[in-house]
Amino acid sequence: MPGSNPYDLGLEQSPVNYRPLTPLGFIARTAQVYPQRLAVIHGARRYNWSETYDRVCRLSSALKAAGIGRGDTVVLIAANTPEMIEAHFGVPMCGAVLCTVNTRLDPAAIAYILMHCEARLVISDTEYASAVGQALALLEHRPRVIDIDDSEGPGGERLGELDYEAFIGAASTDEHWQEPVDEWQPIALNYTSGTTGRPKGVVYHHRGAYLAALSNMLDWQMPRHSIFLWTLPMFHCNGWGFVWTMAVNAGTHVCLRRCEPQRVLSMIRQHGVTHYCGAPVVHAMLAHAPKEWKVGISHRVHGLIGGAPPQLPVIAALHRMGIDLLQIYGLTEVYGPAVVCAEHQEWSELSTDLLTERKGRQGVRYTAQEDMAVLDPEDFTPVPRDGRSIGEVMFRGNMTMMGYLKDPQATAEAFLGGWFHSGDLAVVHEDGYIQIRDRAKDIIISGGENISSVEVEEVLYRHPAVRTAAVVAMPHAKWGETPCAFVETSPDASIGEAELIAHCRSCLAHYKVPTRVIVGDLSKTATGKVRKVELREHALRLATRDAAIPID
Amino acid sequence: MPGSNPYDLGLEQSPVNYRPLTPLGFIARTAQVYPQRLAVIHGARRYNWSETYDRVCRLSSALKAAGIGRGDTVVLIAANTPEMIEAHFGVPMCGAVLCTVNTRLDPAAIAYILMHCEARLVISDTEYASAVGQALALLEHRPRVIDIDDSEGPGGERLGELDYEAFIGAASTDEHWQEPVDEWQPIALNYTSGTTGRPKGVVYHHRGAYLAALSNMLDWQMPRHSIFLWTLPMFHCNGWGFVWTMAVNAGTHVCLRRCEPQRVLSMIRQHGVTHYCGAPVVHAMLAHAPKEWKVGISHRVHGLIGGAPPQLPVIAALHRMGIDLLQIYGLTEVYGPAVVCAEHQEWSELSTDLLTERKGRQGVRYTAQEDMAVLDPEDFTPVPRDGRSIGEVMFRGNMTMMGYLKDPQATAEAFLGGWFHSGDLAVVHEDGYIQIRDRAKDIIISGGENISSVEVEEVLYRHPAVRTAAVVAMPHAKWGETPCAFVETSPDASIGEAELIAHCRSCLAHYKVPTRVIVGDLSKTATGKVRKVELREHALRLATRDAAIPID
Repeated sequence: MPGSNPYDLGLEQSPVNYRPLTPLGFIARTAQVYPQRLAVIHGARRYNWSETYDRVCRLSSALKAAGIGRGDTVVLIAANTPEMIEAHFGVPMCGAVLCTVNTRLDPAAIAYILMHCEARLVISDTEYASAVGQALALLEHRPRVIDIDDSEGPGGERLGELDYEAFIGAASTDEHWQEPVDEWQPIALNYTSGTTGRPKGVVYHHRGAYLAALSNMLDWQMPRHSIFLWTLPMFHCNGWGFVWTMAVNAGTHVCLRRCEPQRVLSMIRQHGVTHYCGAPVVHAMLAHAPKEWKVGISHRVHGLIGGAPPQLPVIAALHRMGIDLLQIYGLTEVYGPAVVCAEHQEWSELSTDLLTERKGRQGVRYTAQEDMAVLDPEDFTPVPRDGRSIGEVMFRGNMTMMGYLKDPQATAEAFLGGWFHSGDLAVVHEDGYIQIRDRAKDIIISGGENISSVEVEEVLYRHPAVRTAAVVAMPHAKWGETPCAFVETSPDASIGEAELIAHCRSCLAHYKVPTRVIVGDLSKTATGKVRKVELREHALRLATRDAAIPID
Repeated sequence: MPGSNPYDLGLEQSPVNYRPLTPLGFIARTAQVYPQRLAVIHGARRYNWSETYDRVCRLSSALKAAGIGRGDTVVLIAANTPEMIEAHFGVPMCGAVLCTVNTRLDPAAIAYILMHCEARLVISDTEYASAVGQALALLEHRPRVIDIDDSEGPGGERLGELDYEAFIGAASTDEHWQEPVDEWQPIALNYTSGTTGRPKGVVYHHRGAYLAALSNMLDWQMPRHSIFLWTLPMFHCNGWGFVWTMAVNAGTHVCLRRCEPQRVLSMIRQHGVTHYCGAPVVHAMLAHAPKEWKVGISHRVHGLIGGAPPQLPVIAALHRMGIDLLQIYGLTEVYGPAVVCAEHQEWSELSTDLLTERKGRQGVRYTAQEDMAVLDPEDFTPVPRDGRSIGEVMFRGNMTMMGYLKDPQATAEAFLGGWFHSGDLAVVHEDGYIQIRDRAKDIIISGGENISSVEVEEVLYRHPAVRTAAVVAMPHAKWGETPCAFVETSPDASIGEAELIAHCRSCLAHYKVPTRVIVGDLSKTATGKVRKVELREHALRLATRDAAIPID
């Protein structure tokens, strides 16, 4: 038959050669290969992989028996406990979608999420019973509640009839769980905190969760059997995907309800923790801990830092303690980390300044994210690799969300032109590594010139007394906007506005120097991010007051 | 809208969040992130990843210019040289399918493959010009031939008008390659040597190649930037997938035209090789090399062994040299390695005998192969985990071939009952690790009892003088069949049939002891496998001759 293609015949997909990609297979394999290995440490509780798998299967059975299945949402409002890990497998095993909620949200926000995702069942730690109880009271139809009554927790009111142990204890494990019908099936729902407006529900699928979990292993070069300490809340992008990663890693989860530096450092020593993740505040907290807490770590520890570049004093202090930092960058919409500052062996020969500069870049795409670029948002042309031209970071690939739940318009806007728009502005260096300059909305436009708030923050961080710095736009009668800085300093430092402005003058073009530097405590989100919305309001108040004074 | 599912709306696939999985993205990323890192060493030639990527893109452009595209097959008959690596990316980049041919095949077999796959273009190393030239003469339509005229090769006649360097040298690199339209698109075609009948063409797709390449990294725990020595022919299941693995690994390929022990050991030292693969004969060759060749390896080297379990003296000798062996098992139909003897930290406490026994098991499924089981081929029930009950090893998952090219009947037979049938017989141990007992056709049935040829071979290997052992069925007037052994001994050993039979008697049930043990050289395939077909014919001749002598 001339012209026919020999590969077009008889090579179709079948269940023999095509299975949906899903992270659920990771735990099944690890429970089979390493059943006796320690999977979870939580206070005095210990579960090996066989026991964890058994508990996961029981949870799935119990959910099925409660009528939960495909397309249903199960909400968890919980700390970093074994139940949270188990839900990442047990909920999708019955076909349902896992929605983990930020435990610091107020009752109205929790109620909004429960309504929006049409929660069928809520699993809630008693520590948060007050807020969750108030949220439930706001709902027309109250979903069933299962309480996590954790002996490591502070205790609290029970909201449901059953606690988690009773719920899974009564379940049968005879029935084997089913893989998803389709790898495009949703596995998780994560609400973005959203600086304005209602939170949006970001939907992940099984395929993306599988690939993101593997990419975490590869891009962080995690050896098998790593010991992972949960300094990062699991409600944050499914713990940046590491809840699933640790199953394929056949490692050990070390649970942690509260990220306190003394406790973190003692657990690193006690359990031989090898890996942990967190926002800059987590790492800074360890670096600034009292000397006597820091000593005695006799193995190398790997920390992943996301949210802002690591600062030199933090890198140096952690390195001396035995901790090496690697920077990642990402967003909820790309499964958490999707860009990594992949290191080069030659960097070991760089001076400390150059090394810090290199490690301060966000880097290159994750192995499993097919494309990332810094583009002109108007015409989608890439910015030159000059380290100066600013464009918007955009992604496309298998580690990009399915979309926003029940918001096709927001999805279409986010996917405009065939790319996911991060809203973050960056430059590209000669080596192709990107460096974030700002959130699109954080850029300061002064006298028609763009000022990167990140650049001004970096200069402030170079001052030894500065612990945290945040720069926002302040309205200005003449220039339109000028930078306004908010700074937290070391407890033992006594430094004022004038000195910090002088420091900035010595490093920055004049128009980039903050008009005001406010020294004091900064309000932060549950994940350690500075609340720039509040700072902008603060700056607005200052500007209004200052406007009474003649300018020029 | 009650009853509607919130996840059914507006969460569709689009090019933003769904890209075809393909190993082609690995080389693009590595060329971007590590452009200056050494990618390929071959004799005096050196290419970094940027150069290799450039050559790959040129190859793709040149093929496109030659009219090659989707659904076309490009055949390579080549040694382990840079061109072979480049073809693994350049051929699929233009949409075509790569078919690498065993260089030891005779002209008729090569001609059959060229005809069967409808080869559009042949890239052929001049070393094999004689066989390839004869094969081409057998064809009605002669495809275009590009010669690889390798300065490291022995030289030979050129068959085409252009050599490889001229072919890619003239190509443009302006055009960027396109990812496959579909991850189910074929990427490679590998003909199984097939002990009987015509070879069958096993088709791989982009999705499977991507997943198998990642699984190699994970299941062998390969660190980034590994140095991989090509002791395994790349024509064997695309070098067990490692041609693609080394791109995501951002490591270095060390090419090798001929696997000679002195050269292998000198390259391990010279280039700091960290990883290599091979059939048992490759590892045995190194273990049995003269002492002065073996000294001076000052780093740990990792060897992957497939085809038969590693023997104790080989494990021990290699370990002393600095080489650690890991056993894998697989077949062409499952992308090469698909089962791995995943090690446990506790094994370090085992006695040498117990450790050898553990390391002699084939193990558990690869991370990216969703299912592997040892089943009764009649009713598909799993055999008990007793280390004794024999069943057939079966696979299903993403690391299973698309099927056999132009042979839907053979594909349907291989996929009967929803599993790929390996044809290999195995037991399952208490820990879930499988151990191959025999090829289905290699089992010996003596007086109604099944005798595993592998079990008898293992006993023979325990004798210090035995280098290689192969046991086949010999027709027997009284018992139907009896075992007949063929043995290669160390050059310095002088040992005869009687002593080896006595050795087997001391270890085996009487009915399992070989009736005959023939000492001499064994004929092997290009990949180091003993040709059991020939041994069976030999045994048949012996039996016919012996039949003249009265039995009993």
